[in-house]
Amino acid sequence: MSSLSVNHLLGIKNLTREDIELIFETATNFKEVINRPMKKVPSLRDITIANLFFENSTRTKLSFELAEKRLSADIINFSSASSSVKKGETLIDTVNNILSMKVDMVVMRHPNPGAHYFLSQHIDASIINAGDGTHEHPTQALLDAFSMREKLGDLQGKKVVIVGDIMHSRVALSNILCLQKLGAEVMVCGPTTLIPKYIESLGVKVEHNLKKALIWCDVANILRIQLERQDIAYFPSLREYTMMYGVTMEILNSLKKEIIIMHPGPINRGVEISSEVADSKQSIILQQVENGVAIRMAVLYLLAGKIERNS
Amino acid sequence: MSSLSVNHLLGIKNLTREDIELIFETATNFKEVINRPMKKVPSLRDITIANLFFENSTRTKLSFELAEKRLSADIINFSSASSSVKKGETLIDTVNNILSMKVDMVVMRHPNPGAHYFLSQHIDASIINAGDGTHEHPTQALLDAFSMREKLGDLQGKKVVIVGDIMHSRVALSNILCLQKLGAEVMVCGPTTLIPKYIESLGVKVEHNLKKALIWCDVANILRIQLERQDIAYFPSLREYTMMYGVTMEILNSLKKEIIIMHPGPINRGVEISSEVADSKQSIILQQVENGVAIRMAVLYLLAGKIERNS
Amino acid sequence: MSSLSVNHLLGIKNLTREDIELIFETATNFKEVINRPMKKVPSLRDITIANLFFENSTRTKLSFELAEKRLSADIINFSSASSSVKKGETLIDTVNNILSMKVDMVVMRHPNPGAHYFLSQHIDASIINAGDGTHEHPTQALLDAFSMREKLGDLQGKKVVIVGDIMHSRVALSNILCLQKLGAEVMVCGPTTLIPKYIESLGVKVEHNLKKALIWCDVANILRIQLERQDIAYFPSLREYTMMYGVTMEILNSLKKEIIIMHPGPINRGVEISSEVADSKQSIILQQVENGVAIRMAVLYLLAGKIERNS
Repeated sequence: MSSLSVNHLLGIKNLTREDIELIFETATNFKEVINRPMKKVPSLRDITIANLFFENSTRTKLSFELAEKRLSADIINFSSASSSVKKGETLIDTVNNILSMKVDMVVMRHPNPGAHYFLSQHIDASIINAGDGTHEHPTQALLDAFSMREKLGDLQGKKVVIVGDIMHSRVALSNILCLQKLGAEVMVCGPTTLIPKYIESLGVKVEHNLKKALIWCDVANILRIQLERQDIAYFPSLREYTMMYGVTMEILNSLKKEIIIMHPGPINRGVEISSEVADSKQSIILQQVENGVAIRMAVLYLLAGKIERNS
Repeated sequence: MSSLSVNHLLGIKNLTREDIELIFETATNFKEVINRPMKKVPSLRDITIANLFFENSTRTKLSFELAEKRLSADIINFSSASSSVKKGETLIDTVNNILSMKVDMVVMRHPNPGAHYFLSQHIDASIINAGDGTHEHPTQALLDAFSMREKLGDLQGKKVVIVGDIMHSRVALSNILCLQKLGAEVMVCGPTTLIPKYIESLGVKVEHNLKKALIWCDVANILRIQLERQDIAYFPSLREYTMMYGVTMEILNSLKKEIIIMHPGPINRGVEISSEVADSKQSIILQQVENGVAIRMAVLYLLAGKIERNS
Repeated sequence: MSSLSVNHLLGIKNLTREDIELIFETATNFKEVINRPMKKVPSLRDITIANLFFENSTRTKLSFELAEKRLSADIINFSSASSSVKKGETLIDTVNNILSMKVDMVVMRHPNPGAHYFLSQHIDASIINAGDGTHEHPTQALLDAFSMREKLGDLQGKKVVIVGDIMHSRVALSNILCLQKLGAEVMVCGPTTLIPKYIESLGVKVEHNLKKALIWCDVANILRIQLERQDIAYFPSLREYTMMYGVTMEILNSLKKEIIIMHPGPINRGVEISSEVADSKQSIILQQVENGVAIRMAVLYLLAGKIERNS
């Protein structure tokens, strides 16, 4: 039980419950490391990691970079804006080129679901999915579940509602799979237009009334409304969305119990969450960010262990 | 007297004369370090610094990065082009997220004066102002005064003229405050349209005739005319500006004394300064750049000392 | 024979055959280094390198960055997109500013041929040409020749054909000069419109028929057709180009001998080279990329030795 069952982190789908427990245990150790004055460990000193971001990202990229630096890895960064991808090169050629420079691990965000799997079939390096379109975002799901467990202990039988735009979120699916593997019950809540039809087939409850969902749950994970995406036609309108699904202190106070509030960030204050809620004692939004570095250190560390074992 | 009176470098306004002397003394030591073959010291090995540039910058950013690397700090870079700021997140949320990743110091350039002060009230990390709109740019003022002192010794009673667009410069105000704290007399020189009315209330002389200003001074600090800013209507026109305020060898030779020529860069050869003047023996423009790294190392080092003391 | 005859790598033109041999010998050692688990050496621990890219580049920039990291150098990156160059500053001022920050070596890509020479006359740091417009790209030529020698041994009398757009390539000229210094015979092959008239004066054969060229050679180095450059009017059209000069398995199989296939990347599958050829056993495209890091380590290491000797 000191090794993952996989060589890549493509999605939560591929992890066993034991894998998740091992990642959490390792992250707990790293969380101690990053909270002491000497924040670095030499574990990955001879590992080179390429961060390939074919879509914009700020917090996930920074979190991975910090995790890599804490582990003393060498890092090269590559973003699509400056890449040969624009010159018509295929993904596999771009990545093969980078790997020929003796890169050991690839952290990749790519708009196409399946890009990570495809790569893992064709190249030697360890692949970590840092988000693939609207499909999976496994490290986010791991840090979310880890943050819940810090607050609630064992997640067996705990009730988690994911509120918002389930359809266009890469966080939702990974969260559902991760929470279910850990024994939690999952509900999604939002307008019909933002909840995909297949979701019930995953064993997830669907609730369109926010208050009912919040009364049911122990934890509410509130997804970001993607204001910058022009291709999403929100129905109801943004203003109506806020009225119907915006989480406010008023609704929280009406619950007669204290639930935990989470958000993957970046938050839109006054849209899906009020400022008061985001800054309240119930909110663990900033702990999520802190745990993100520890979880990513754990994933990198455990997968690097697999490389050494293989070679 | 081995500690600053402040926990942040928000502006020259907040520094005592003793703070400035301590920064200079520390910078003198670091200048020796960066001129020896072994240019690095391990002083900030366990410090993580976030460089947050919400406005473009080349030389200031590079200078801070080099200072941080010479001190062996871990660095994460963040620029507004790729940031969540575009996604509608507030400044405090962006910075809080970065700090939750256990960042110890924030070097920030931000267009809004006051952004740095606001942050320093709300977050734990040490904040260093790398330029806030047209308000303060304290490390530039420190390196300028440090460079003058290298040439002239004690600045008490020395005469410094700042030539150019005082109105739209973030360098002018910080320079005035820093020089006055060190006992120098300050004059500004330029067309009426580019000199703000409040400047005389700071105890600064105003002179519209370049030759008279240069005859008066020991040092002329020539500001850059910002050719790329379309929002500044120069009056007189750029060509007239150069005729009236461009510093040439001809005017320097007519002074019958040798003054020191400074410029914060980047220079427009043939606009506010002629090529001959920029490259002359009187010019200490490149020494300013060199001193910039030493000054920034000193500021980072001294503020990091405050963090350790606090925790 | 343990020192280069030059202080800069401006172009292949300036290297002696002994220089090239020394670079290859050193690269061979570094190739061993980067293939062992401990990929880093401390050789350049006290060297600061500025990577100045005034034109976009992905693979060359990544390759240099990795080479610098493997050698433990400190790195600062500067690209024209974010630079003061836009503010009207001259190249020499930009670079002088960077050097005043105590930078030891400059790796520069610049659109103007001659920019590197100009700099080397005016500044102290060691200059490495990472591509200058359509003129020279010396490290690419070195890695290409190094890769051929790995396969074929001594290049004396070996026959190399460069296929494609010779006119707009920065790879062609450096390759021709490098191969000739090592005793190889060089031919170029492509449509008349893409072969400059002066090429025969270099002692290079010209062949317009692809099959004849391939029958003649031991190695075919296939240049990229620059799809993204709108200023190049391809004649014949792109489709006709592929029909006449695209290298396919069919044509390779018809040769009755096995030639080595090279490409500087990024490749356009199905344009100048078919997928089958790019992925065939005859192709050493990915070895070229791997050798690129070793060659660049060797160049940086040997030029750093010159700095220490000078000072």
